[in-house]
Amino acid sequence: MRNLVLPALLSTLPIAALSDPLPSWEDTATKQQIVAFVETVTDPSSADYVTPAARVAVFDNDGTLWAEQPVYFQLIFAMERLAELAAQDPDILTSPVLEAAAKGDLAAVAEGGHEALIEVVNASHSGTSVDDFQAVVSQWLDTAQHPDTGLSYDQMTYQPMVELLRYLRDEEFRTYIVSGGGLHFMRTFTEDAYGIPPEQILGTYADSTYEMVDGVPTITKAPGVAFIDDKEGKPINIERTLGRRPIMAVGNSDGDYAMLEWTTAGDGPRLGVLVHHTDAEREWAYDRDSAIGRLADGLDNGPDMGWVIVDMANDWSRVFTGSQ
Amino acid sequence: MRNLVLPALLSTLPIAALSDPLPSWEDTATKQQIVAFVETVTDPSSADYVTPAARVAVFDNDGTLWAEQPVYFQLIFAMERLAELAAQDPDILTSPVLEAAAKGDLAAVAEGGHEALIEVVNASHSGTSVDDFQAVVSQWLDTAQHPDTGLSYDQMTYQPMVELLRYLRDEEFRTYIVSGGGLHFMRTFTEDAYGIPPEQILGTYADSTYEMVDGVPTITKAPGVAFIDDKEGKPINIERTLGRRPIMAVGNSDGDYAMLEWTTAGDGPRLGVLVHHTDAEREWAYDRDSAIGRLADGLDNGPDMGWVIVDMANDWSRVFTGSQ
Repeated sequence: MRNLVLPALLSTLPIAALSDPLPSWEDTATKQQIVAFVETVTDPSSADYVTPAARVAVFDNDGTLWAEQPVYFQLIFAMERLAELAAQDPDILTSPVLEAAAKGDLAAVAEGGHEALIEVVNASHSGTSVDDFQAVVSQWLDTAQHPDTGLSYDQMTYQPMVELLRYLRDEEFRTYIVSGGGLHFMRTFTEDAYGIPPEQILGTYADSTYEMVDGVPTITKAPGVAFIDDKEGKPINIERTLGRRPIMAVGNSDGDYAMLEWTTAGDGPRLGVLVHHTDAEREWAYDRDSAIGRLADGLDNGPDMGWVIVDMANDWSRVFTGSQ
Repeated sequence: MRNLVLPALLSTLPIAALSDPLPSWEDTATKQQIVAFVETVTDPSSADYVTPAARVAVFDNDGTLWAEQPVYFQLIFAMERLAELAAQDPDILTSPVLEAAAKGDLAAVAEGGHEALIEVVNASHSGTSVDDFQAVVSQWLDTAQHPDTGLSYDQMTYQPMVELLRYLRDEEFRTYIVSGGGLHFMRTFTEDAYGIPPEQILGTYADSTYEMVDGVPTITKAPGVAFIDDKEGKPINIERTLGRRPIMAVGNSDGDYAMLEWTTAGDGPRLGVLVHHTDAEREWAYDRDSAIGRLADGLDNGPDMGWVIVDMANDWSRVFTGSQ
């Protein structure tokens, strides 16, 4: 009988239980700390056991789940979209920043800082129904290529992170994205790219309006930014949306600091993880002095709070999902 | 062998499959329409089959899942809380409305309409951490009694609705509350009362702040109202939070009209349900002329849109969970 039972049993186990769930992670202390945390909180005999309902893990997106250089990919979309819209109606370019953006002048937009970014996003993202907007983004993602790598943007997701998300879900975690990126922008690709459904995506958003358009109830994106899901906004948005504190938070910049701080200050077992971009060869190397994804406070204070710092160059055997 | 297999099989079926999942509903056309909808969308051989991921049902709370007369229960809490706070610091009663509220003068507060309600909620709900606020609400719910029935407020949930929520979840629906009530207020009782976890509660909310208080990262409720989850706000909040349109929406007042309209305008099978308060004997009878839970547009236009109108007096064999 035993000979019959064993194969039957094995066939019902998830693949992950039989092989390494994180094959693109080098076997370093980083990987071991992450796996040890997951094994502890899922072990019913452990004093640090956490019930599945409380197994919530939150991930930043830009620079954590996919790349963010030379600028946030959403800004590249916004500039290309603005150029398209301006080709039909040049009057929408009402400022030097918008004119520069429509010409693809990244440096000029970057120089304008946060305000310029908001202005470009505003001009390119609003005044359209959510459905139409998302169709435009999907179409763009299907054809756009990154200026340096030539990969499509959804090929520039990080393979080790896709594996980590899957591993966590196999262990009955619920995985969420909590990103400064646009909510409606992200939802066009996050289910395919990461296996995360739309109701588990939190991001920056504008107000919406609800009204009948040609007899059809329509939700339309209004101008302006109603909520910025960055820095202190991240724990605030998580608390508001989930009503509970995660037990694990993963980010890569000081925009994620408050999210990791709040997560790891909770009672019981907690894990904070920061991705440190150290790999100039396969990706980019940047931290304290970067305009995009600045990481200083996290490097200075994270280790004392027990946060795990991922050294991309040494901890990952593979970087992008779209290249070996 | 068959004799052994059958009991084993039955023991793995949920109870609901073996008996009536809605015992507190009379066997009327209303119940039949609801059950027929659920059976259709969960039948893989049906042209109207809906995958579990898309089986989202949204419910209003006040007047739909629990009673709302003579006023919203949250307002009763707010007035009692205000009286407590004023006993320590009478200076917080900065207006005639607040003075009336602290004295328990419901009529005066009701006369002030929506603005008075917001003022009372503001003065009693803000300036405290979310954790502390929820502890206060829980304590209140443990002891407070409804002025007419003498029941505790969580005994005034509707037994037929608790059954409907459970039935839907047994059929792999995800059940959400989308209410004009306060988000943090509701989350103190909605998991126990309805089996709905905090991340599936949407409601009205104030801004929050995130800051270190005595070395502890703390989320605090700010004054004012950041978002009112009523009328057009309901579909807007659902779209923002879930990123998908429900296939079923249940409400009881014109505050739920837009939510039902948006839900039932989607492609494929959809169900809109309105609870009509027709039962002056066991509950209350009110609709067009009620200050609380006004229902006129829904009665006028709902039937033409295929919405099911629940006649409480005739469709429910039992009303409150707390009384037979």
